[in-house]
Amino acid sequence: MDVTRGNFREVILELERVIPAAQFLAIDGEFTGLRAGQDVNAFDTPSQYYSKLRSGSMGFLLVQFGLCAFSYDKENDKYMHRAYNFYIFPKQQVPSSPDQRFLCQSSSIDFLASQGFDFNKLFTEGISYLTQPEEQKLRDHLEEKHKSCSNTNSSSPGTEENSYSIPIPDEYVSAVEDACSRIEAFLASSEPEELELDRCNAFVRKLIFQTVHHRFDSNAVQLESRVTEGRNRVLVVTRCGSPEERKKREKEKRDKELQDLEDAVGFSLVLKKISQSGKLIIGHNMLLDVCHVINRCYFPLPEDYSEFKEMVNCVFPKVLDTKYMSDLPLFKNRMSSNILGHMYKTLSEEPFKMCIAKSEEEGHGYNTLNDKYHEAAYDAYVTGLCFITMANHLGSLQNPKVYPVLSSSPLLNPYLNKLFLVRVQDSPYINLVGKDPIVSRDHVFFVSFPKEWKTYDLTQLFSPFGGVFIAWLSNTSAYVALYHRDQASLVLKTLTQSDTYIVMTYAAHQQLQDERAVCKCAHSSGKSMCSSCIRKRTVTKQLVPSSPTTTSVRKRRSMEALQEEPEVQTSTLKRKRSSSFGDKTSYSNRIIDPIPEEEEMDIVRHNEQASTIEAGGHGKRRTSSVDGTDSSERHGSSLGDNAKRQSKHRQFFEESDMWD
Amino acid sequence: MDVTRGNFREVILELERVIPAAQFLAIDGEFTGLRAGQDVNAFDTPSQYYSKLRSGSMGFLLVQFGLCAFSYDKENDKYMHRAYNFYIFPKQQVPSSPDQRFLCQSSSIDFLASQGFDFNKLFTEGISYLTQPEEQKLRDHLEEKHKSCSNTNSSSPGTEENSYSIPIPDEYVSAVEDACSRIEAFLASSEPEELELDRCNAFVRKLIFQTVHHRFDSNAVQLESRVTEGRNRVLVVTRCGSPEERKKREKEKRDKELQDLEDAVGFSLVLKKISQSGKLIIGHNMLLDVCHVINRCYFPLPEDYSEFKEMVNCVFPKVLDTKYMSDLPLFKNRMSSNILGHMYKTLSEEPFKMCIAKSEEEGHGYNTLNDKYHEAAYDAYVTGLCFITMANHLGSLQNPKVYPVLSSSPLLNPYLNKLFLVRVQDSPYINLVGKDPIVSRDHVFFVSFPKEWKTYDLTQLFSPFGGVFIAWLSNTSAYVALYHRDQASLVLKTLTQSDTYIVMTYAAHQQLQDERAVCKCAHSSGKSMCSSCIRKRTVTKQLVPSSPTTTSVRKRRSMEALQEEPEVQTSTLKRKRSSSFGDKTSYSNRIIDPIPEEEEMDIVRHNEQASTIEAGGHGKRRTSSVDGTDSSERHGSSLGDNAKRQSKHRQFFEESDMWD
Repeated sequence: MDVTRGNFREVILELERVIPAAQFLAIDGEFTGLRAGQDVNAFDTPSQYYSKLRSGSMGFLLVQFGLCAFSYDKENDKYMHRAYNFYIFPKQQVPSSPDQRFLCQSSSIDFLASQGFDFNKLFTEGISYLTQPEEQKLRDHLEEKHKSCSNTNSSSPGTEENSYSIPIPDEYVSAVEDACSRIEAFLASSEPEELELDRCNAFVRKLIFQTVHHRFDSNAVQLESRVTEGRNRVLVVTRCGSPEERKKREKEKRDKELQDLEDAVGFSLVLKKISQSGKLIIGHNMLLDVCHVINRCYFPLPEDYSEFKEMVNCVFPKVLDTKYMSDLPLFKNRMSSNILGHMYKTLSEEPFKMCIAKSEEEGHGYNTLNDKYHEAAYDAYVTGLCFITMANHLGSLQNPKVYPVLSSSPLLNPYLNKLFLVRVQDSPYINLVGKDPIVSRDHVFFVSFPKEWKTYDLTQLFSPFGGVFIAWLSNTSAYVALYHRDQASLVLKTLTQSDTYIVMTYAAHQQLQDERAVCKCAHSSGKSMCSSCIRKRTVTKQLVPSSPTTTSVRKRRSMEALQEEPEVQTSTLKRKRSSSFGDKTSYSNRIIDPIPEEEEMDIVRHNEQASTIEAGGHGKRRTSSVDGTDSSERHGSSLGDNAKRQSKHRQFFEESDMWD
Repeated sequence: MDVTRGNFREVILELERVIPAAQFLAIDGEFTGLRAGQDVNAFDTPSQYYSKLRSGSMGFLLVQFGLCAFSYDKENDKYMHRAYNFYIFPKQQVPSSPDQRFLCQSSSIDFLASQGFDFNKLFTEGISYLTQPEEQKLRDHLEEKHKSCSNTNSSSPGTEENSYSIPIPDEYVSAVEDACSRIEAFLASSEPEELELDRCNAFVRKLIFQTVHHRFDSNAVQLESRVTEGRNRVLVVTRCGSPEERKKREKEKRDKELQDLEDAVGFSLVLKKISQSGKLIIGHNMLLDVCHVINRCYFPLPEDYSEFKEMVNCVFPKVLDTKYMSDLPLFKNRMSSNILGHMYKTLSEEPFKMCIAKSEEEGHGYNTLNDKYHEAAYDAYVTGLCFITMANHLGSLQNPKVYPVLSSSPLLNPYLNKLFLVRVQDSPYINLVGKDPIVSRDHVFFVSFPKEWKTYDLTQLFSPFGGVFIAWLSNTSAYVALYHRDQASLVLKTLTQSDTYIVMTYAAHQQLQDERAVCKCAHSSGKSMCSSCIRKRTVTKQLVPSSPTTTSVRKRRSMEALQEEPEVQTSTLKRKRSSSFGDKTSYSNRIIDPIPEEEEMDIVRHNEQASTIEAGGHGKRRTSSVDGTDSSERHGSSLGDNAKRQSKHRQFFEESDMWD
């Protein structure tokens, strides 16, 4: 069911019953965008990945939160569910709550709209939310206000600070006098209940405020400025009535303010209830969902990566990411794709046995598969079904077989508290309750090069060492991974610095990045290492630890390279380029664009030419992100021939849908 | 009439007739937000104002553009109009067009939604647009693509760069073989027209591409990847047919691509037509509208202010801002507010004679006043009516009377090409065709102070010199303007530096800011001058030019101040504060918030307590932007008693609606 401001309070009451009774909870979110700024790289460490996600994705808004509570009826051995589709939007429920600025990504908005997402409903009826610090600030503020109000009510007027008074300019005298006469007449009568003085600009309002303050008894008349439907501000006059009436009105106002504050907290209460339940939380590719909901409804995400892990573990003590689970060999070997819809299809076929979980109540869930993918609650529902199916499949492989595999089963332990990392090559998850996996990247090199370079130039540079996988960092740098890992030492012996390009080990580059964080390099743009710094450091810093002899040899080589090799190298490359690209050089230039690869994959409608066979070799080599090339093509021609090594890299192609 | 993608092409044809026949064009825009980042200050120079607007407002989106063409029938002496309400949204019409990231402001979205703005219509049917550089890039790209495509069609396959081929991992062999068999069967039959291979992840798609390339004749089969409605990517196989068929299909595809490009240019064509018409363009408070439409549909706004003025003048050679026009004494003296609705009401009363301009055609305009304020075309319509009324009023004051005053009348010359600047104190417009007005700010001082300071502390500091107007820069700095301008020299003699605060002339601070632009101050945050730099400079830089004798005296004083005065000063202030604020200090602290003042004014719904008379003196002195205080209150208690000087400052209160 859809949950908006209109039915939120009753749903909260319902959830107080539903959540504790659930076997587990599945969640999913829809966002106004995925990423801005620096793109995730296939060789980012989990900490770097998090840092990019925090700075690049948290500016977008979580606009729909799907919650699907699955209960298990042991007696009849059947699952039931209840699905809630929360529309959430940071409307200013309370004047002092923050007026958020948030990002949207055109393609994401377009996509949601094309899926029938109701933005009008979102913006008019969306439930508000606050982080805990925001909530606390408002509570403190309200308390102070009420306290101060009581004080000022009894204080005497005309204190020192009030002594300045603005003389009324001639052209406004009549407006002010007119207002005063109307107020006088209003006070003399008993109807209507309030008097609206319209068409005042702020300065005239100020003058009226001041004059009324001087002329009228503040115990008799109350003047306030109010915003009308049309966004104009007007002054509204009311009678104060007897002290009892005023007291009563004051109390009503305070109660209303407190209620408004609860409304402002809104959806954050749902997160609180989910968190406090301690239930197993299921999501598919859930890192973004988890980050957004915590960042918006609990606490701004911390800069520090380990603090972040602690925070997630604190809010969600037990999570399971079905993207991670389905990515392990047991399931992966049977799936040619594990984006949600595909995964559901695969799990509906042999040898799996798709679970059925009917809706507990009409209108509170999904009874047939109605292909409402990308409606958050539906995605949460399908994720839950897939989870149950995979869990039971695990049980069926045990000896003796285990059935049913419920959320508390130890069979699930290997899958718990690991959040899948889309696009990371070899370390594809965040371990929330321990150290992240340690992987060797000795076969990965950082390369810096002229902006004219394309994939082809890099594959040519590394061609003596076999195939490579290229992970672009910017239009002048990339990580290059060898398929033949044993060629790594040869790379270091053969490729040294030149004026045209710079090569260093992955480890050395990572260390440079760490150092840069504390270095006050004036020409660092803050985004990527400036090349003069890289050069300075690479001359003194050796590519790899090596014996004193080879070091000095390499040092010499590297100096020679700086003096002599570049020209040769450049001209060779130029020749190679011109021979293979003919007059299409400018067309073939790689264009770097802020569009992340997987979005491009999902968004692009027409990429006929680039990805058709007819387009031939040249077409495929283009690596532009903006020309609609299928991203799998980007790395295509650089792929080598060692299947074993490649299995690591396949990761990249397979996990490219952030939209799951 | 509403204009969306559906009827855009026919409207363009209509405009080709309507625009040239128009007497003038009125425009208006609706945005997803107003401002992020640094707020405009009442003492910004026009150039600083522009710079803040460019960096803080252009991230938002123009989502509705109202165009109202007014024609004049001389024979019958009557105006007619046609109104167009363009929904515009940067959808990616062409894969290679940019995937925009844009900002929204919660309150603006909420407001538009509350006014019935149809976001679903916007996101599903909004007309696209491109800047000229974007358009050129796409045209070049398409041309290159078509050229390259012709070349590759005739080139031979299997070039060097294609020689790498990925071995097919065991688990994917069956998927690839299955695809090949299906393609074979498909080619052997004549139906259906295309074959969709679903459930492939990117890696499997790559493998299928590669295999099909090797096994099948590229003249017989065409393979492309396509995105389905559900955003999944699938491979689609089609037969190539005879060379003639292929050629025909190729041509159709190119024609389609060219048409898609025209659709992507979309609304930018309307701006072009408006610009080329050379007609008088009318807007109310039109700076933001002009900036947005140029920035999104013509050329990114330049950093340089004079370049900006040139650019606007180039796109709109003849503009008239009714906010500026109505702000001049002739009209202003009769208006207690010139926000659009109020201005319309005032101009509907004596001595003005509101113009009537019926709709030329049913459904193409407004025939009655239906209070659709904030629908862009309606606002444009009302703006046009107000303009005609004011123009004719000008004529009625001439001797002999002039009637009608048409758009070409020299009576309008004083009002042309001046864009109103909301909130600027004394220099309230940008002159597009000449120098901006020069104003003296000798009575304005820059003050830097501890973050605990509030309005009250500043008014106390300056109390010996009479009333002041305070324009906050940050929570530790502000411009303070004296009402008694002749007290300026006394300020310089009396107030020198202290450890607690720093005072310098407006001119000196402006100069520092200019210098900061080139200075590489390491501790400058880039937002405001760091206090250590300010201190360093103020010790060496004199507050005002003065004779050698007074300089040395002041130097001494200023050193003394650094050594002795601070403590005295601080304790005095502390005493003052504590005596007047009692235990409410923390409550009374000024909170600086990114919400611009006029938005706050317009958005706030409930500000009863703070702005009611009951709240008394203390309540009024709070200057928090987040607590719902009417912004006129913020400066209230600091106002002095010199009416003549104040008239300059009234500006501030009167022009606070950016929503016009």
